[in-house]
Amino acid sequence: VGTLAVIGVGLIGGSYGLAAKAKDLFDRVVGCARSEATARAALECGAVDRMTNDPADACRDAEMVVLCTPPESMAGIGRLIADTCPPSAIVTDAASVKGPVVAALEPLFGDPSRFVGGHPMAGSERSGVANADAGLFRGATYVVTPTERTSSEAAEAVRALVGALDARLIEMSPARHDAAVALASHVPHIAAAALARRALARDDARAVHGTGLWDTTRVAAGDPALWCEILLTNADAIAGPLGALAEDVSNVRDLLRSGDREAIEAWLAEGARLRRALPPRKGSDA
Amino acid sequence: VGTLAVIGVGLIGGSYGLAAKAKDLFDRVVGCARSEATARAALECGAVDRMTNDPADACRDAEMVVLCTPPESMAGIGRLIADTCPPSAIVTDAASVKGPVVAALEPLFGDPSRFVGGHPMAGSERSGVANADAGLFRGATYVVTPTERTSSEAAEAVRALVGALDARLIEMSPARHDAAVALASHVPHIAAAALARRALARDDARAVHGTGLWDTTRVAAGDPALWCEILLTNADAIAGPLGALAEDVSNVRDLLRSGDREAIEAWLAEGARLRRALPPRKGSDA
Repeated sequence: VGTLAVIGVGLIGGSYGLAAKAKDLFDRVVGCARSEATARAALECGAVDRMTNDPADACRDAEMVVLCTPPESMAGIGRLIADTCPPSAIVTDAASVKGPVVAALEPLFGDPSRFVGGHPMAGSERSGVANADAGLFRGATYVVTPTERTSSEAAEAVRALVGALDARLIEMSPARHDAAVALASHVPHIAAAALARRALARDDARAVHGTGLWDTTRVAAGDPALWCEILLTNADAIAGPLGALAEDVSNVRDLLRSGDREAIEAWLAEGARLRRALPPRKGSDA
Repeated sequence: VGTLAVIGVGLIGGSYGLAAKAKDLFDRVVGCARSEATARAALECGAVDRMTNDPADACRDAEMVVLCTPPESMAGIGRLIADTCPPSAIVTDAASVKGPVVAALEPLFGDPSRFVGGHPMAGSERSGVANADAGLFRGATYVVTPTERTSSEAAEAVRALVGALDARLIEMSPARHDAAVALASHVPHIAAAALARRALARDDARAVHGTGLWDTTRVAAGDPALWCEILLTNADAIAGPLGALAEDVSNVRDLLRSGDREAIEAWLAEGARLRRALPPRKGSDA
């Protein structure tokens, strides 16, 4: 029923389109991308029925709009589409940072607002619409961040979308989301990059590396420009835990120097307990 | 030809025994363990031909001795066996730290010394002789650490053992080895534990975790008592890079606070470049 508008048709945007078509969630999918090549690729792989390079045009008949562009572009796109969207259209996004995005977009779509933030925690080492996948969201954690200004219709519609995508719905405030992903994703990314920079720059260490260093540094291979953007957008939530991590590491160095066996073993044991308590992983990615 | 004595018959010691039997590297394998249960299990799985609880007895007719006990026990065992070993016996070990072990053992076995340090970088989440595997060392990195005091016969014999186990031989000094594993294994372990303690203690962060946090913290699940021992034995080599890592993380926090996009992206890009340059992993573990 109705039209889904996908603004930004890369890996994530394309996967919304493919899933919507595969599950017949909407009558039509309209995509928006700046580049001709992306538009062609999106049409070719069947992620969309129509492409345009004008966000306002893409949203003209939309029942639902999903913004899948980089976080820093979202406020501008929101202003472009706010007037052309039908007054009933529900607007959501897929950015990995929610506080600034929700603050910028929520006021543009009425009061109560028809905008609800979302963060599908699905991804892949690959990017681009050519790698889009109708099953990308299946089993993935999908955080939805309604606020006291969110209309109940909008919250319900996005919850229903999450269900239709077979993702695992979690709801929390934008601020709690940002603090959670800072700890679960952004701080680990910085730690992985720091380890990669220290250990992998040395021939001897590279020569003796095993699966430990391999796994610990895996995420450091991620796209630097994209991650720089993510980290800067969530800098407020990252700075605190990042400083605490630096202090933890520095404290362990002091314990090692003083040879405090009991304290070191207790410190390691708490980490082991928490890590072992983690349930086996699903197909989700952060 | 001759007898292999394996002192300490757990996962690693048992795997030497099974590999020696499977490949017919020695006429006989004699194991040494303190516990009756370990002795029974070692005999049952065919890792050894005979068990004893006396290291001196185990080495009486040995052509080669492999010490597979915890690093802190090795000096004492070395003194126990030094007089009963045949004067031609080659002695090596499998400890993950080499400086202190080589310093303690090398002087006990003549000059030039028939002791050569070794570190097979193979392992498993599981432990005990019941999990021993004739193929554990296959494809794994195996560091051998001869010094200027090492006899050429001893170095050659241990190199030949590494080859017979189908492991990948690397040679470096004990000090270089310890600096390399500090960077490649010990510092990442501490970082993983610190991340686990920060992120996995929080419900919200656990709820949104994906493969990023999963991989980054994996090694933190390792046995705390064993790791405490490893870290303390190599504390001198770990303290420096651990302090540097804490400083790196703290510097990135400052860059995030100041919003220095160019510096952050360059910092991430160097980590990504180094991680992407890593060749696909083999079956080895650190």
